[in-house]
Amino acid sequence: MEAIKTEIVQHVVNVNGLQIGGGELVVMAGPCAVEDEETLLAAAGAVKEAGAQVLRGGAYKPRTSPKAFQGLGQAGLEMLAKAAKATGLAIVTEVMDTRNVDEVAAVADILQVGSRNMQNTALLKEVGKTNKPVLLKRGMSSTVEEWLLAAEYILDAGNPDVILCERGIRTFETALRNTLDLSAVSLLKELSGLPVVVDPSHGTGKRSLVAPMSRAAVAAGADGLVIEVHPNPEKASCDGPQSLTPPEFAGLMGQVRRVREALTVN
Amino acid sequence: MEAIKTEIVQHVVNVNGLQIGGGELVVMAGPCAVEDEETLLAAAGAVKEAGAQVLRGGAYKPRTSPKAFQGLGQAGLEMLAKAAKATGLAIVTEVMDTRNVDEVAAVADILQVGSRNMQNTALLKEVGKTNKPVLLKRGMSSTVEEWLLAAEYILDAGNPDVILCERGIRTFETALRNTLDLSAVSLLKELSGLPVVVDPSHGTGKRSLVAPMSRAAVAAGADGLVIEVHPNPEKASCDGPQSLTPPEFAGLMGQVRRVREALTVN
Amino acid sequence: MEAIKTEIVQHVVNVNGLQIGGGELVVMAGPCAVEDEETLLAAAGAVKEAGAQVLRGGAYKPRTSPKAFQGLGQAGLEMLAKAAKATGLAIVTEVMDTRNVDEVAAVADILQVGSRNMQNTALLKEVGKTNKPVLLKRGMSSTVEEWLLAAEYILDAGNPDVILCERGIRTFETALRNTLDLSAVSLLKELSGLPVVVDPSHGTGKRSLVAPMSRAAVAAGADGLVIEVHPNPEKASCDGPQSLTPPEFAGLMGQVRRVREALTVN
Amino acid sequence: MEAIKTEIVQHVVNVNGLQIGGGELVVMAGPCAVEDEETLLAAAGAVKEAGAQVLRGGAYKPRTSPKAFQGLGQAGLEMLAKAAKATGLAIVTEVMDTRNVDEVAAVADILQVGSRNMQNTALLKEVGKTNKPVLLKRGMSSTVEEWLLAAEYILDAGNPDVILCERGIRTFETALRNTLDLSAVSLLKELSGLPVVVDPSHGTGKRSLVAPMSRAAVAAGADGLVIEVHPNPEKASCDGPQSLTPPEFAGLMGQVRRVREALTVN
Repeated sequence: MEAIKTEIVQHVVNVNGLQIGGGELVVMAGPCAVEDEETLLAAAGAVKEAGAQVLRGGAYKPRTSPKAFQGLGQAGLEMLAKAAKATGLAIVTEVMDTRNVDEVAAVADILQVGSRNMQNTALLKEVGKTNKPVLLKRGMSSTVEEWLLAAEYILDAGNPDVILCERGIRTFETALRNTLDLSAVSLLKELSGLPVVVDPSHGTGKRSLVAPMSRAAVAAGADGLVIEVHPNPEKASCDGPQSLTPPEFAGLMGQVRRVREALTVN
Repeated sequence: MEAIKTEIVQHVVNVNGLQIGGGELVVMAGPCAVEDEETLLAAAGAVKEAGAQVLRGGAYKPRTSPKAFQGLGQAGLEMLAKAAKATGLAIVTEVMDTRNVDEVAAVADILQVGSRNMQNTALLKEVGKTNKPVLLKRGMSSTVEEWLLAAEYILDAGNPDVILCERGIRTFETALRNTLDLSAVSLLKELSGLPVVVDPSHGTGKRSLVAPMSRAAVAAGADGLVIEVHPNPEKASCDGPQSLTPPEFAGLMGQVRRVREALTVN
Repeated sequence: MEAIKTEIVQHVVNVNGLQIGGGELVVMAGPCAVEDEETLLAAAGAVKEAGAQVLRGGAYKPRTSPKAFQGLGQAGLEMLAKAAKATGLAIVTEVMDTRNVDEVAAVADILQVGSRNMQNTALLKEVGKTNKPVLLKRGMSSTVEEWLLAAEYILDAGNPDVILCERGIRTFETALRNTLDLSAVSLLKELSGLPVVVDPSHGTGKRSLVAPMSRAAVAAGADGLVIEVHPNPEKASCDGPQSLTPPEFAGLMGQVRRVREALTVN
Repeated sequence: MEAIKTEIVQHVVNVNGLQIGGGELVVMAGPCAVEDEETLLAAAGAVKEAGAQVLRGGAYKPRTSPKAFQGLGQAGLEMLAKAAKATGLAIVTEVMDTRNVDEVAAVADILQVGSRNMQNTALLKEVGKTNKPVLLKRGMSSTVEEWLLAAEYILDAGNPDVILCERGIRTFETALRNTLDLSAVSLLKELSGLPVVVDPSHGTGKRSLVAPMSRAAVAAGADGLVIEVHPNPEKASCDGPQSLTPPEFAGLMGQVRRVREALTVN
């Protein structure tokens, strides 16, 4: 359907056999933060059943205020490890400090660098020295060019496995938490061979928009999605208003599969 | 596929029998500006054949510089009338001055109010007094709330037939002409019963992104698309770099139809 | 204090003998809207006494919502004429419709084109045909280049007397109504010979910031200020929270005079 | 000149006897990056002579591209120590990695946290554990509220000595590198007792605007300035176009002193 791009070679990131950027739609789902073992296992089981391949959840949380819940840290990482064992899902979780990279990499299959740290060059260099794929979220006011240069810090350090994650940018519009920039997804597919995934949960901040923006992201050519799912969003320690319930997530999975198929029909 | 919204009643705009907001995807296509009769008729024939229902083209052009081509004015309107007669397409064209509303309404089936005039309240009141539907483009830095209040100027003046057109907003990102805000499309479907269409040509300013963003707009729930098509984009008097050729447009039409079908499958 | 710019010739706008851009600081002050004769005369007397040379006040008001007060129109213009006669102040007031230009020009010494109409090219051309100076407010998301091109519409139509007014731009920051861009003032003094004035009332939307931003504007090289002053801000029909009382305005005048003198000391 | 704020107590940061926020205008000046000893000493001598109290210069540089000069690191810190000894100036320099905080704090009198790391919460907590004052630059798209919450990370960790530095925000405007937000300076003086300084070099990115924006910053109430000065800007390894020569800097110092005096005259 798309013209063949002779210059750009698509890079496929391999996560324990899961191919990201290789044609299959990859969905990473789970709660904003790891809160307790029971909730995490419930979320993991639900997203696995609906077809997600990767479990997301934060043990270290970057919060705007120091008074907000900062995550469970090492204890959270252990819960993620249990959930991975129980479900077979791969794990993506955030690392925020150069001193914690080894600790997080011991559990994570994919290291997440968050928006607030997209230009934390010390951290970029450090994750670039690991052999774990890196999910690099776009900074809140990062241009596409700056984002690709941030990725280059990781690539230059020797790690070829960068996955770009569009998660909404900051604009004048206040109706939603961020402005999801889906044009950037299509543009990145022209400029770079790196896989591109979209996080419509942070991108909109509003539960009812997660499904339509997931469909739109897939229609725009995204290689995957990152979706916040919580067994009980009203009780979530963070991001409840943008988290889907398991049944809502299952409905979304059906929708995005149909859109994906529509793109590949000849 | 979407939950039923009991509060919001979808308003369907009827343009000579064409239903906008009524379930069918409506595509408005044609050149940026009316340049000459031959080119306009060629464009009109091509977009009609590919399945567009409305011909777009500017006779009065709002340009950033006074040195830029300002449009053919009344002569352009006459060419649009001929193209309508030749093809049976409905016409959407811009009106920029309260003194020209009657003149433009004599030819146009849909009056366009452009981004630069979204808060030209004198003009909004004046098009509100006509019995022609109004395509109200979002201002470059207009919030969704301000946009709906601009629509209210038209509704309050007695004209219920407003079609909202997302055309990209102005952000810090300079890689593309604008940042197409597809979340706004989904949000508007929750907040208002007015039809919402998307202009990915202005929204991206880049030919290669028009098709993926058209697919994404449809996946997000848009009721229609506005697409710049020119028989010879390199010779276009304006917006050549974002205009599709007729074959590219025909390809796009196939893609968006498949996405639309994927949304309506049970 | 500044290097001599050989290329840029400063244009001085003459308003009944008042020189704008000629070295003297020009202050335009008064209420947001003309509400009634008594209030307007009280405001006019107070700003005159404190040293303002021009009375501002809207008879035609561009409002975001059609339900908001739209101004007194012709009746408001008559009140402005009376206030001018009573005080000797020049009048600046907004024109919003090409059909009202003559009516407004019959009373106004300076025609204001507001932010929402900065790219209303029909209106720019029309005020360009008058012999009245035009105060051209910057559009909410207008670049400096677009602003100068909007000015060129007026100049090209034959009117050399354009005064540029910085009034804050729209950014992500929500703490204040707008972000006052004082760098643009200094930049414009390098790029153009047109007088530049600053409106810190709209630029901040907050009474307590009007004085510090007025001082800063003068320190940045502005040729004048536009300040909202109301005898009783709590009762103002619009913009009360950013309007100064007459004593606050008198205090501000003393501050900006001292800053201005500091710039001209050798 | 300002109303007395009973709620907000001004915090004065003491740097080896130099009071920041205590009434005296504090100027931090020097090259973007520490390049070599000779250049640094020349810059230090020049800014000292013109009246600066603090020497700025980066040993660790946060650069958008990994190919750009990343700073001299430890060798640069040693040069800064020599310059401090030679001139008696205090030193402000950036720290970018939690693992380097002790190393930088051994030389710096003030630790700088840069815009890209404003929400690097691990770093904020770490500098909060030191007994060195912290210059916290505003993030490129940080709201005033987020900035104050970032400061709170440092305060909460036990370090009361935070100096806020406005350095321009990212907006749609491309004429200049950033949009200097001087309203934020006045607003912060109402919201917080922390000292606020302004960096017009990064704030504008343009040499000719540094002096007018410095005057404006002082007029707006800033407690100090951060200015890039280089003996030979054309040869600077970074930020040459926004660096002043020593004579330009000396001229600026005279201007800002006169503005400061104008504010304090009764």
